Amino acid sequence: MQVTLLHNTPLWIADKAIGKCWAKDKEFVDRDRMYRVGNKFKHASTLEHINYTFDIDGVSRALLQELSRHRHASLSVKSTRYTLKELKNATDLESFLVKIGPGFDPKWNIDVLKNIQEMLKTGISTDIVKYMLPEAYKTSLVWTINMRSLQNFLSLRTDKSALWEIRNLAHEVYNQVPEDHQFMLSEFVKERV
Amino acid sequence: MQVTLLHNTPLWIADKAIGKCWAKDKEFVDRDRMYRVGNKFKHASTLEHINYTFDIDGVSRALLQELSRHRHASLSVKSTRYTLKELKNATDLESFLVKIGPGFDPKWNIDVLKNIQEMLKTGISTDIVKYMLPEAYKTSLVWTINMRSLQNFLSLRTDKSALWEIRNLAHEVYNQVPEDHQFMLSEFVKERV
Amino acid sequence: MQVTLLHNTPLWIADKAIGKCWAKDKEFVDRDRMYRVGNKFKHASTLEHINYTFDIDGVSRALLQELSRHRHASLSVKSTRYTLKELKNATDLESFLVKIGPGFDPKWNIDVLKNIQEMLKTGISTDIVKYMLPEAYKTSLVWTINMRSLQNFLSLRTDKSALWEIRNLAHEVYNQVPEDHQFMLSEFVKERV
Amino acid sequence: MQVTLLHNTPLWIADKAIGKCWAKDKEFVDRDRMYRVGNKFKHASTLEHINYTFDIDGVSRALLQELSRHRHASLSVKSTRYTLKELKNATDLESFLVKIGPGFDPKWNIDVLKNIQEMLKTGISTDIVKYMLPEAYKTSLVWTINMRSLQNFLSLRTDKSALWEIRNLAHEVYNQVPEDHQFMLSEFVKERV
Repeated sequence: MQVTLLHNTPLWIADKAIGKCWAKDKEFVDRDRMYRVGNKFKHASTLEHINYTFDIDGVSRALLQELSRHRHASLSVKSTRYTLKELKNATDLESFLVKIGPGFDPKWNIDVLKNIQEMLKTGISTDIVKYMLPEAYKTSLVWTINMRSLQNFLSLRTDKSALWEIRNLAHEVYNQVPEDHQFMLSEFVKERV
Repeated sequence: MQVTLLHNTPLWIADKAIGKCWAKDKEFVDRDRMYRVGNKFKHASTLEHINYTFDIDGVSRALLQELSRHRHASLSVKSTRYTLKELKNATDLESFLVKIGPGFDPKWNIDVLKNIQEMLKTGISTDIVKYMLPEAYKTSLVWTINMRSLQNFLSLRTDKSALWEIRNLAHEVYNQVPEDHQFMLSEFVKERV
Repeated sequence: MQVTLLHNTPLWIADKAIGKCWAKDKEFVDRDRMYRVGNKFKHASTLEHINYTFDIDGVSRALLQELSRHRHASLSVKSTRYTLKELKNATDLESFLVKIGPGFDPKWNIDVLKNIQEMLKTGISTDIVKYMLPEAYKTSLVWTINMRSLQNFLSLRTDKSALWEIRNLAHEVYNQVPEDHQFMLSEFVKERV
Repeated sequence: MQVTLLHNTPLWIADKAIGKCWAKDKEFVDRDRMYRVGNKFKHASTLEHINYTFDIDGVSRALLQELSRHRHASLSVKSTRYTLKELKNATDLESFLVKIGPGFDPKWNIDVLKNIQEMLKTGISTDIVKYMLPEAYKTSLVWTINMRSLQNFLSLRTDKSALWEIRNLAHEVYNQVPEDHQFMLSEFVKERV
């Protein structure tokens, strides 16, 4: 899994929005006020002005199922129709699958990918073949989410009840957030177990 | 695939909303006005008052990937953790898979389910085993969508460029809509090819 | 202010959605499970299947400013262009204004409405004249909101920091909710002060 | 009215998102592809990655009523409770009102503000006094909207049927958008009449 922050709105934009609601503009970003307004008083809409765009690479279709349930975010995903064309003549099949960890033999999923390659070579449509894809199959996406929605995402997905892979993603995402933004997010991140 | 309409808001609610904006209430549902306001003048927010709830059963995880991209809808999906428990000791494995159609031999996916059963019996966690699930694996959900969002869904998903399974779903959904609602939706449904 | 519930989704729809996620269907609506899942475990998306449509009449433009900030709801509002035509030749001007309560003399606002009537009679456009309308001017709307969003609305708007009029609205809305739904909402309603 | 672009996501972010879906990354921003994908093929979700934040100052409460109906945007508005404190001892009352144009005598609204000042000085609560505010009363806000939603906003609000003030706003907003973004938006802007 590779998570890269592509862009973020600078913090002073939220400060400006908060200043608009309650008081005069400040000459510096008032972090105490932002924490008070956004996280304590739960005037969370002021945090929607801050957006983050991440490049997320090498995550599974299983993870994508869960990620796409966060409806307050925008995601542009690599088309399976497209990745199946890449798979067709590939030799390093393991590179198309996320690593599952101890106790899981990747052989079975690799065998499935071999079967898929054969089917693709006989000319069967990708829209049929994709029904054999294992959930471990890798995908890639660009994901934009605002600070308010990210707080909710981190809270739900760093929880120990979350799927291990999306828990990893949540921590990677948090680590990619600029350091001077983290004070608004850290309380939503549960410790890794 | 089994689609059942569980509930819908009656049409007069949208009529009431439209009457609120422009004119006096009528004693009957003014279908001409509704069509004019909602579909011609594109004052589509008046159509958001009409909600439909469907029980959708026997669709694949591949379809779910696409369905969950429609963010203006609510969906409650049968947990994979739960269905894997059902799978563990099942004998009719084919019933866990959607039918793909001619040219597709279900044997390969059935073999994968057998491997999954073995792994489950050795006590490996469902959160690991699910990474072998083929996209043809069946799921089930309750889906609520309003008329405005349904127009958009039908338009995109009855198109010939859509995945065949979600195209089938779109037509089934349309057929389940009460007949006296269909005049607002029919122009968004493309002919089946 | 007159609030009337026009329609609601029956409770068993949410029960069905919850049953879909975790367990078998029940033969009765399992209120304990619904409370546990929706309010304790905060799996709030299951509550989005329940929608309420209210007819809200005789509230001010000041209230509308605040109501329209709740973006997870649909509202169809009586057009000012339309109500100004009603005002033009009206005689009971006080009926166009919400009652503000002790310490507020309606005379000033009534005088403004008289000026507006004069301007309308000289043929000045409603789009110009509306800039004189006082915030006490009455409007009317149809409002649809789901149970999850309604919980949030009640929590924010029954708070003592909320504007008195929207606080009244929040209590009226709550009173209009069917009695067998209130157990899911009551903890979000703060006591009237 | 004063509209200032405070921040925008750079264009290459949308290009990256589009490249993710269909093809390899390019070394330059492929404007033709972006136009084709976003505006012709209506794969509009790829445009949601681009956000704009505007400082909007000196617009009326009448305009705010309409602006807040665009639910796919975030807005942080100067509190009326706060601006009424500023008004209390102000002398240049005209500066608190938007200019309405020919045929509209600001005197009447200024007289209303004088009455409001008197009431505020007798200690009546701002939550009561605000019910006298005319719709011409100025407010100020920070507004964040993505490119997809902005296309919709421009299309609806540059239309000749829109309120003159929000039509002005729509043109001001468009003029503030960086020049190299305008090719994605210009077809939604109707000519000024």
